[in-house]
Formats: sequence, C-alpha cells, structure tokens
Amino acid sequence: MTEIDGERLVARLTELSAIGRDPAGGVSRLAFSADDVAARDLVASWMEQAGLAVELDAATNLIGRRPGRRCDLPAIATGSHLDSVRQGGHLDGPLGVVAAVEVAAACQGLEHPLTVVAFANEEGTVAPPGFTGSRSIVGTPPDMAEVVDADGRTLGDAVAGAGGRPNQLGSCAWAPGSVAAFVELHIEQGPVLEAAGAKLGVVDSITGRVVLDIEITGTAGHAGALPMAMRHDALAAGAEIILAVERLASGVRVATAGAVNCTPNLHNVVPGRVVLGIDIRDGDDACIRHSLQVLSCEVATIASRRGVEIVVREGLFTAATPTDPVVKAVLAAAAAGRAARAGLAGHADAIDWVLELPSGAAHDAQIMSAIAPVAMLFVPSRRGLSHTPEEWTSPEELILGAACLADAVALLDLRLLPLQESGGPATQQSAG
Amino acid sequence: MTEIDGERLVARLTELSAIGRDPAGGVSRLAFSADDVAARDLVASWMEQAGLAVELDAATNLIGRRPGRRCDLPAIATGSHLDSVRQGGHLDGPLGVVAAVEVAAACQGLEHPLTVVAFANEEGTVAPPGFTGSRSIVGTPPDMAEVVDADGRTLGDAVAGAGGRPNQLGSCAWAPGSVAAFVELHIEQGPVLEAAGAKLGVVDSITGRVVLDIEITGTAGHAGALPMAMRHDALAAGAEIILAVERLASGVRVATAGAVNCTPNLHNVVPGRVVLGIDIRDGDDACIRHSLQVLSCEVATIASRRGVEIVVREGLFTAATPTDPVVKAVLAAAAAGRAARAGLAGHADAIDWVLELPSGAAHDAQIMSAIAPVAMLFVPSRRGLSHTPEEWTSPEELILGAACLADAVALLDLRLLPLQESGGPATQQSAG
Repeated sequence: MTEIDGERLVARLTELSAIGRDPAGGVSRLAFSADDVAARDLVASWMEQAGLAVELDAATNLIGRRPGRRCDLPAIATGSHLDSVRQGGHLDGPLGVVAAVEVAAACQGLEHPLTVVAFANEEGTVAPPGFTGSRSIVGTPPDMAEVVDADGRTLGDAVAGAGGRPNQLGSCAWAPGSVAAFVELHIEQGPVLEAAGAKLGVVDSITGRVVLDIEITGTAGHAGALPMAMRHDALAAGAEIILAVERLASGVRVATAGAVNCTPNLHNVVPGRVVLGIDIRDGDDACIRHSLQVLSCEVATIASRRGVEIVVREGLFTAATPTDPVVKAVLAAAAAGRAARAGLAGHADAIDWVLELPSGAAHDAQIMSAIAPVAMLFVPSRRGLSHTPEEWTSPEELILGAACLADAVALLDLRLLPLQESGGPATQQSAG
Repeated sequence: MTEIDGERLVARLTELSAIGRDPAGGVSRLAFSADDVAARDLVASWMEQAGLAVELDAATNLIGRRPGRRCDLPAIATGSHLDSVRQGGHLDGPLGVVAAVEVAAACQGLEHPLTVVAFANEEGTVAPPGFTGSRSIVGTPPDMAEVVDADGRTLGDAVAGAGGRPNQLGSCAWAPGSVAAFVELHIEQGPVLEAAGAKLGVVDSITGRVVLDIEITGTAGHAGALPMAMRHDALAAGAEIILAVERLASGVRVATAGAVNCTPNLHNVVPGRVVLGIDIRDGDDACIRHSLQVLSCEVATIASRRGVEIVVREGLFTAATPTDPVVKAVLAAAAAGRAARAGLAGHADAIDWVLELPSGAAHDAQIMSAIAPVAMLFVPSRRGLSHTPEEWTSPEELILGAACLADAVALLDLRLLPLQESGGPATQQSAG
C-alpha cells in the first residue's frame, strides 16, 4: 500500500482552518468570498506541488489533472469542497479536498488519469441549495440570474467576483464517459460511526430528501377571555403535527420538524398562525412519497378536529442516490484492508472498524452520480456534530480516512481496467 | 330609571378614538404618551361639564369628584382607563370612563359622593404588567426607577412627562373606608356573551393567573445525519408540553401555550433549544397551583423519556379576585331590570340578556378590590376580539351597558346606605 503523508494532511487542514476563521467561533468561509478564493489559491499551490495541472473552470471549480499511463482510459476523480456555512467547522469539505491532493502525491504511476476537484459553493449559504460547481460539471448549472443578497447581487455576480465566467458555464460540463469513478471522503456529520466504535464508514446511499412548509391558520384571541371550547389554536395544532412528523420515522429514516414560527407569539394571546419547517429523508424515494401521504391524512384530521386551516407546501425534492455497487465494494475492500492492518497492530477487533451506512446529508457526490459511478467514505464526527465550531475528528482518524482513500484509488485503478484486460466486469453505473 | 345620553356616549367614544389613531390600523394610545395626555385632557373637560371637581393625582390618575347629599358616607366610584395597547381597539378602557362620565351627568342627587376615575397605565405596554394608577390608589405603587425603554427612561420619567409627580405617589392612596363600592364597565374581550346571545355580563370573579417560561435544552444535530434513536429533540419535547398545557384546562379554566422560540430554527437542524411561554388562569388559585403540580409531573416524564433538560420558571402569580357578592347582586338586579324592559319592548326573551361569567382578563377593578367592594359589568365583544383594530361592540350594546351602569349606581346609592337607615345589611367586602 502506498502511504500518504499524514502529518502534512493534518498540517494543511490546520493551515486552511485559519482562512475565514470567525471571531465568534468556527470558520465562516462563505462561497465566492475573498476567504473562499484565498483557500482555493492555497490548495491550487498544493495541487501544483503534487504534479497536477491546475485549472479554474467557469463556475470556479478548482480542478487538478494528471494523465494516466493509458491515455484512452476515463479518469478516476476525487475531491470535495472548500466553502463552509457560517460558523461551521474546518473539516466539512476541506478533508475531502486536502486528502485528494495527498492521494495524488502518493499514488504515482496510475493507469487511469487522476482528477482532483474542489467544487464551488457546495453549502449553498449563498444561493441555496448550493452545489453550484458540481451542478455545472454535470451540465445542469443553476440560474446565474438568481438574486443572492439584499443589495440585488446575483449568483452570476458572485461567481464573476470569485474569478469565474458565469456566461460560459456550458464549458464546465465534463464529457460523457470521461469519469470512471468519483469517490469523496467526508466527515460523517452524524454520530453513527462513533456510537458503533467504527473508524471508517462506506456509504451505501445518499438519502433522498423533501422539505415542507406547513402553515396553520387558526384564530388569535385573549388567553384569558377566550374559553377553551371556542378556540382554534394554531400552536396546539402545530404541536400535534410536530409529533406526527416524528412518528413518520417509523416509515422513513429521519423526519424532523426543525423550525416553528408563531404569530403573535405572546404568552397571553392564543396563537393565530404557525408555520412549521419540516425535513424528511430516506434512501427510498417511494418511502418519502408514502410518508407525505400519511402526513397529509394526519394533517387533514387535525385541521378538521380543531377547526383550523392547514396548508402543506412541498419544497425541493431531492431523489435518493444509491452509491455504485462496484465502487462501493472497492471502498469496502480498501477499508477492510486498513482494518486488518489496525487489527494486526492490536488496536481493536478489525470487524468493528468498518460500517456500511447511508449518508443523511447531501454531498457533491450525489450530484456527480448523474455522470459517473460514485461512492463515499466517511470518518467519524465527534458527538455527531457538524455545521458548528465544535465539529471535530481526531488527527488519527483523518489520516486513516485519507490513507484508505489512497488505497481505494489504487484498487480502482486496477479494478476499473477494461474487461478484456483485467478479466473482471467493468463498473456499471447504477440507476438512480 | 334615569336615562343616560346614549347618543353623546357613542359620539364621545368616536371622538376619543381619533386620538392616537394608528396609520397601520387601530389605536396606539400608549400610557403617558402625548396622545394619552390629550385624551385625558378631553375627558377632564367632559368631567367638568358633568359638574365634577377634577384632579390629576401624582400617578396621573384623572379623578372627578362630586359630593353626596350626605357628607358622612363613603363614595361610590366607577371608571376604567384611557391608554391602549399598540394597534388596539377604541373601546378597551374608554367605554368604562366615558360611561362613568355619562352616569355622573345622569345620576343627580345621590346620597353618596360619586367618584369617576380614569386610571393611569392599565395596559402595561409601558412598564408591564401595568396598573400604575390603580396600584398607586390602593397604596402599592410600582417602582418608579424601573427602566421602560432602550434609552434608559424610567417609569418615573414617563409619569413626570405626563404631568405626574413620581416622588409623591404616597399622596395617591385613598383613605381606608373612603369607597363604598367600585364598579367598572368594560367590553368582554372574549366571545362568551355573543355566543350565548347575551347583551350584559355580570362578572363573578376576575381570574387568577400565572405566567411560566419553560426552557427545553436538547441536542442540536444534522436533520439528515442524526438517527432518530439518538435524538434529544427540544422541539418534539416542546410539542408534548404544549399539548400537556392544553390538557391542564380540564382542571383550570384556561391554559395557553402562546409563545415558542426555537434554536437554531432551521428546517435541516434538529432543534437544540426551545423556550415556551405559558399562561394559566382560573377563578380558584388552588386550582392553578394544582395545575402547576400536574404540569411539573408531565414535564419530568417528558424530560426523562426524551433525555432533555427542562426548566420551568414561574413568573407573576396574580391571585383570583371574586367580585363582592352585594355589589354583584346590585349589578345583576340592574341588568335584570334592563332585560325586563327589553323584553317588554319585544326584542328578545329577557332571560337571554344577562349572563354571569368570570373575567379572564385582568382589570383595574381587580387591583381596587384591595380597598373596596368591587364588581364589573361586561358588554359583548364581536367575535370575542380585543387588543386588535377589529375590536367592536355595537352602539346599542354600548348604550345599554352605560344605562345599566347608571341604574346600578342609583341602586347602590340606596342599597349601600348604613344598616340602621336603609334596613338592609351593609355591603361586606369578600375575602380573597
């Protein structure tokens, strides 16, 4: 196995974490900001050090390329993003980019071309739901005319301000068949690996998601003078819906009422209007659809019983994305290899080290699945925290993740050789 | 029966409604404001027209007095307030003041002295919970050093700015035994009279009230990445509490969760912290106390089951105030008399016209009960609305209420004569 430079990986992540550090805590390196550009320029210099040919595409994706020994083969691609949410952590995104650069440095002499990517605006703190870079690469870029701030600045203005060419986004699209596999290393952002005592996670699917706004209109009234029997309390109805959403998780993986806004929101006034923000996710889109039907029935019952009006507004529906079975199997094999080595070193029972799990969060890999077989590798997040200054993964786990990514790229380089040469079946992109 | 000038009553209420009219709707005549002072000055001129000797006390209570035929008797007092909430209605308060002035004009030759009061700052939009005027009259004035706005202005500054003398509030207190009865006419601010088809309400008690803040601390997390089984969702716990509060109304008259504030309040984050604002009212303080014990048990169960921390903070507890049985009986007799007259006129079955009901809202009468036997008379509020521009009561109902108040004052003047002269029992102030 080719070893990466783990010490340098951790040092580079620390160096990056200073760019956009927020005085109030954590990292605020918003997409297309000066800090985002500075981080990108630093990573570009590391790409060059690793012998990659660096390009900034029209969407401001930073791309480092190295030819393979065989010029007829599609590329193995890996990477993630550099932008953060406001007061986010320093690993969500950068780990996958910095590790990819280390993989490029460590994995020399590959048959396939290697491509390392830092995708633009994954988080969508500017222009939600984000993925500006990966959406441009797969040929479905977002609308550049979208206004993204109170001053009327558009997404196109933001892209141009960061060195992009918003009127040439068509040039970003990667040619069909040009990618043999895309793999992304990321922190889990959830507590599953830590709770299981696992060190590496192989993602079996990136969950589908639907976002809802539920607006409840009752009748406001004096909390002292309006008898209970004459009330149409929007917040009491909202409470029933919040609990109904939680119960949906018997049929879907997660269902969350994350936001509630109540009017007039005073102790002494029966609430007249409540708006709930709901998020439902599952690996199976049909299960999400079914949960919406169940919720719709519950909502109708609550509305009728309480004499309130309830409107459910369905927002963005992102389809679930199973990872590619072959690329996933290669990641699992690489992880098992690392587990065996760790077991040999007497650290823990090897079987505990690797867990197959879904990704509840969305990732650039989900977008990339439109043009390439994808898979993802997770390392643990302490207490499952992410999108907060408390986000943390130990240096040993970061290095283990990057080392496993390098192993996987090396294994993919062999496994993805055309059928007639390698003797194995070529990777097939899964539906989905 | 002595008839009041109903047409003038309605015209004066309309004239007052123009003072502090809010361009955004309704009346914003906040306590101690220039509009509040202007309204007070206008009412002072009407008091003088009615032959009352007008005084502005140190707390800016506007007081109009007329001696009785007997100089040894305590006064019969009536009135309400002139200040409004922001964008409130034009009847909440002014009806009881303007009607009291009409009563003074109509009821000449009383044995008892008559006192008409417009209390200062009932609403407490400045310096909650308000009642600055009535609390000063009963000898327990609020702290004048309390800061009431962002500029550091104190309640004393506000009182002084409206012509009061905040360092002489002791002079406001009415002498013990100086009031034979206090009666207040007010709009109901709830839907009970309208729903019952009643035109007049005799208040049997002004409810006790406790205000709570309930703070729930769970663990925030990624709505996609945090599995349901590992959640400590503050909003789901809050939803259970909201419904538990609603169920408390099996033991108390009303229980309301009126406010909810959720952090971070985003669709895609499991809520980590929720604060609820709760309001519980009943005519029996022991029932309120018991409901707090019930809620405390429910909260402990929810906290334990969900692994969240819940802190219940008890705010202001206002004791319930039964109205005086004799004064209430006189009001009921006056109302029955008006009902009989209406019945004779063929308008409706007289029995439907009068309803005995509790007041869920707090009133100056509740404060005045500390020094006098009190009772209250309600007229209907359309759709139960108050503290909103939509507050409305028909002119006929306003006039009926004022006429009934005049009848009651005339009846009280006879009924409250000392025992040896009238032959009936003297009024006794009830406990509580």
